Amino acid sequence: MLIQRLAIIGVGLIGGSLARALKRANAVGEVIGCGRNINNLQQAVELGVIDRYDTNPAQAVTEADMIVVAVPLGTIASVFAAIRDNLSAQAIITDVGSAKATVVADARQHLGNYLPRFVPGHPIAGTEKSGVAASFAELFEQHRVILTPLQETDPQAVATVSTMWTQTGAEVIEMSVTHHDEVLAATSHLPHILAYSLVDTLAKMAERTEIFRFAAGGFRDFTRIASSDPQMWHDICLANQQAILQILDSFKTDLTQLITAIQQNDSQYIATVFSRAKSARDKFCG
Amino acid sequence: MLIQRLAIIGVGLIGGSLARALKRANAVGEVIGCGRNINNLQQAVELGVIDRYDTNPAQAVTEADMIVVAVPLGTIASVFAAIRDNLSAQAIITDVGSAKATVVADARQHLGNYLPRFVPGHPIAGTEKSGVAASFAELFEQHRVILTPLQETDPQAVATVSTMWTQTGAEVIEMSVTHHDEVLAATSHLPHILAYSLVDTLAKMAERTEIFRFAAGGFRDFTRIASSDPQMWHDICLANQQAILQILDSFKTDLTQLITAIQQNDSQYIATVFSRAKSARDKFCG
Ligand SMILES: NC(=O)c1ccc[n+]([C@@H]2O[C@H](COP(=O)([O-])OP(=O)(O)OC[C@H]3O[C@@H](n4cnc5c(N)ncnc54)[C@H](OP(=O)(O)O)[C@@H]3O)[C@@H](O)[C@H]2O)c1
Ligand SMILES: NC(=O)c1ccc[n+]([C@@H]2O[C@H](COP(=O)([O-])OP(=O)(O)OC[C@H]3O[C@@H](n4cnc5c(N)ncnc54)[C@H](OP(=O)(O)O)[C@@H]3O)[C@@H](O)[C@H]2O)c1
Repeated sequence: MLIQRLAIIGVGLIGGSLARALKRANAVGEVIGCGRNINNLQQAVELGVIDRYDTNPAQAVTEADMIVVAVPLGTIASVFAAIRDNLSAQAIITDVGSAKATVVADARQHLGNYLPRFVPGHPIAGTEKSGVAASFAELFEQHRVILTPLQETDPQAVATVSTMWTQTGAEVIEMSVTHHDEVLAATSHLPHILAYSLVDTLAKMAERTEIFRFAAGGFRDFTRIASSDPQMWHDICLANQQAILQILDSFKTDLTQLITAIQQNDSQYIATVFSRAKSARDKFCG
Repeated sequence: MLIQRLAIIGVGLIGGSLARALKRANAVGEVIGCGRNINNLQQAVELGVIDRYDTNPAQAVTEADMIVVAVPLGTIASVFAAIRDNLSAQAIITDVGSAKATVVADARQHLGNYLPRFVPGHPIAGTEKSGVAASFAELFEQHRVILTPLQETDPQAVATVSTMWTQTGAEVIEMSVTHHDEVLAATSHLPHILAYSLVDTLAKMAERTEIFRFAAGGFRDFTRIASSDPQMWHDICLANQQAILQILDSFKTDLTQLITAIQQNDSQYIATVFSRAKSARDKFCG
């Protein structure tokens, strides 16, 4: 068996889906869940996602050979601090956080001697829903998981985490922390910020009820990600602040130029931007 | 029969879907298509969307009791000018253009005595695809169609156009031209401009191939509308220029404030915007 005892700290959409996928693949012996809310954890047991739970992270990781930290980014440091002194000698720790530089900084600060056993990770899969009730075993199938090992990371730990994700049907890729944070700022964090900002602009308008009444299919798809968990996205904005501010700056510069072109009836400019965007979208997401 | 002879000028996604829906409802006798490209029109005949075609708009409208102008906004004026002198006495003219003030101005300038027989319209339904091959009879089912009649518009003509759309399964609503253009700028035109602008920002980056490789489900949904026809959206930007510039201005102001909040670690502000947006999205599109 790949993992004898798996501890999932944060049994929500991602942690719950990972537990389900590993159980389905017979890749795990026992799954222990950890969270703050007993009702959630009880529900996770009833759904068969975890076998038992402990609300104390230090207790939850006892004798676990694999620990997956799947809590919001802002609370990862406190989890590291809480579990450090109770880890078994052969334990491997990984996380699923949407930004990696801050998690690595948290690990350096709080994991002490266990730093080489920590494998920073991020599955590029999710929905706008949260909580264990929204979890499902297929979430990671044919999706990518990015690992961003450090110089000091034990290659054996990387290999085991990689195998774990492969068992869920995902494709595992390695890249640097900085590169991860830049790529994700562009493809995930920026779209979420724009969707939230757009919906908020409309929601503040006096005629908002009337306005949303005429929102058709395109709007629904475009704004779906604005239904994501605000706390999680708040954490991501602060955790990946620098990369996000940089891509927001590029976006704002480009948008300002497009606004000027619309003001000045610059047909050529507008047509060029729209055509280039359509070609890129059709080519890469078609 | 509601319509004896229907002339569709512009047999694309919208014109083709309307013809299909009316045929399915047995609401139309003969359907004549008009366009510039004979291959498209021939395909429309083969698909059973139209019964015959004429590439000359003046010929196509001969003895038609209903004329639907479904060409890009930038070419509507030329169609009005071309058909005006060949309209039958009882003809009703309507359009499907995504912005209404410019179409009304075109009608005032080019339709002469027929202005009271012109009913400005806009179905709030569509996909990111174009052309008759993408048309389907169900497109308007349970979608809204907005009519923006003028003071001088013949109420009988409005009633007939309204009945026509009801036959497609749509719900018909009337509002003023100005109100239409403001609401659509917010719910449709702004999202399309943001999607195009975002994809273009990423497409211009040196690592674009690498970036788009990590674009997951959320990104795909968010940018789907950037695959829409660039020409159509170019026309919409110029046709609804004022309302679009106004909502773009509000959006840019709000985005700038959010950027400042991220820069300043203003947790409260970020959380408020994201939560308000999620509530609005869940409430109105949930
Ligand atoms: N959703 C996505 O699309 C997505 C995709 C990739 C990565 N991620 C990352 O995955 C992580 C979790 O996201 P998610 O979508 O799975 O969120 P979620 O569904 O809200 O799950 C988070 C879980 O963490 C628990 N939790 C919160 N604070 C905790 C703490 N201090 N100690 C222990 N447990 C705690 C919560 O349960 P209690 O309330 O009971 O404590 C909750 O069940 C985040 O770091 C996020 O960046 C998310
Ligand atoms: N797509 C949407 O989501 C949507 C939704 C609501 C309203 N609308 C409005 O619907 C109208 C048509 O959009 P669509 O999506 O149906 O576009 P489309 O699929 O590209 O169809 C437009 C058709 O107009 C024809 N055409 C273009 N210029 C012409 C001209 N000068 N004279 C005669 N025919 C001409 C084209 O055929 P030839 O090339 O053969 O001439 C084409 O088949 C636009 O005004 C748009 O604003 C679109």
